[in-house]
Amino acid sequence: MERTMKEYAPTERTTVVRHPERARYQKDVVEQILDKALICHIGFVVEGQPYVIPAIHARRGDRLYLHGSSAGRMLRTLREGVPMCVTVTLLDGLVLARSAFKHSMNYRSVVVLGVATEVTDPAEKRAALKAIVEHVVPGRNEEARSPTESELGATMVLSIPLEEVSAKIRSGPPADDELDYQWPCWAGEIPLRLTALAPVSDPRLHRSVEAPEYVKSYVAKGRV
Amino acid sequence: MERTMKEYAPTERTTVVRHPERARYQKDVVEQILDKALICHIGFVVEGQPYVIPAIHARRGDRLYLHGSSAGRMLRTLREGVPMCVTVTLLDGLVLARSAFKHSMNYRSVVVLGVATEVTDPAEKRAALKAIVEHVVPGRNEEARSPTESELGATMVLSIPLEEVSAKIRSGPPADDELDYQWPCWAGEIPLRLTALAPVSDPRLHRSVEAPEYVKSYVAKGRV
Repeated sequence: MERTMKEYAPTERTTVVRHPERARYQKDVVEQILDKALICHIGFVVEGQPYVIPAIHARRGDRLYLHGSSAGRMLRTLREGVPMCVTVTLLDGLVLARSAFKHSMNYRSVVVLGVATEVTDPAEKRAALKAIVEHVVPGRNEEARSPTESELGATMVLSIPLEEVSAKIRSGPPADDELDYQWPCWAGEIPLRLTALAPVSDPRLHRSVEAPEYVKSYVAKGRV
Repeated sequence: MERTMKEYAPTERTTVVRHPERARYQKDVVEQILDKALICHIGFVVEGQPYVIPAIHARRGDRLYLHGSSAGRMLRTLREGVPMCVTVTLLDGLVLARSAFKHSMNYRSVVVLGVATEVTDPAEKRAALKAIVEHVVPGRNEEARSPTESELGATMVLSIPLEEVSAKIRSGPPADDELDYQWPCWAGEIPLRLTALAPVSDPRLHRSVEAPEYVKSYVAKGRV
């Protein structure tokens, strides 16, 4: 896939049918949502039963990286190349319409379909793990102790190509039926933000060690 | 299932293998997480491909309710009684350990496995839809216009029994390897909170209509 591609080609499986006006296939829109979200939900199937598990991800170019224990069931299942789904959702607000029926939420979500492969190349594996730490707290990699060989061995990293992808976005005020605009109640949006509170030092941290600038600014900038 | 049951019996599929110390099977713990989360992620399978879609849920007693368009593919698939998974995740904080390897997140999650049935009884259907609105914004049902018969027809409601359920919780400071406690960097938690901002009135709302008390207090109480 060329890096110059600007849109994902919708497939039958990623074409948004419900509320098609909310669908987005632009690469920059998708990447922004993936990069903003702190967690994703991974879907996979074992013996006909779907499982949905929260996880941490990071994007590097046209690939999404996931990591976990080498001993874990989930990644061992996924590295076999079974179909999977990674979904990321940013909740932006509650939409209170006049009618109960038109109540909604403002959100930005991305659905990635594909098959994972295990990252075995040590350089790519280290780069992916760094990307995951940096994705969550930019600046952290510089300070934290890097993985040892044995820690690397205990960690499995999977990569999924960003190819079969779609985003869905709802924003703005409620969309009531025309007649309902006379209904006598308040209507509008309650915006929601994921915010970071003041950092809590580890009780075993020496009291002289202050939170670093990248942690303070993480909290100061408000919305995560 | 008796309402007096205090714990879900773990099955092979809901027994937490990775980090078993984080597993919780108590009913009150599970219910609290389900009731707190504004959205869930629904997992289901179509032709071998898992899909994970964000949705709004509500719990009533020992059942979880989901709703959506009667014309939508997802609920039409699910009402056929295929295996599904509903996962709810509350993100509580970022855990910055000394080693990159021990970085983590504090969270509370619930995984519900089961099979959905369509709610066709009109009274139960209306009650479920009310529960969904009240779950998101307590107090809203009193003011919003109730669904018409035609709106009820356009909405499908599914119900899943809370039987095969587990929760997973991580909280507290990082857990570094003993030797790493000497590593010279800050360590601790950055707590995360989903917060509600000042309500934004619908541009078509008459300027004399103020946000009601239940909206103001929703925002005032801080964390959603």
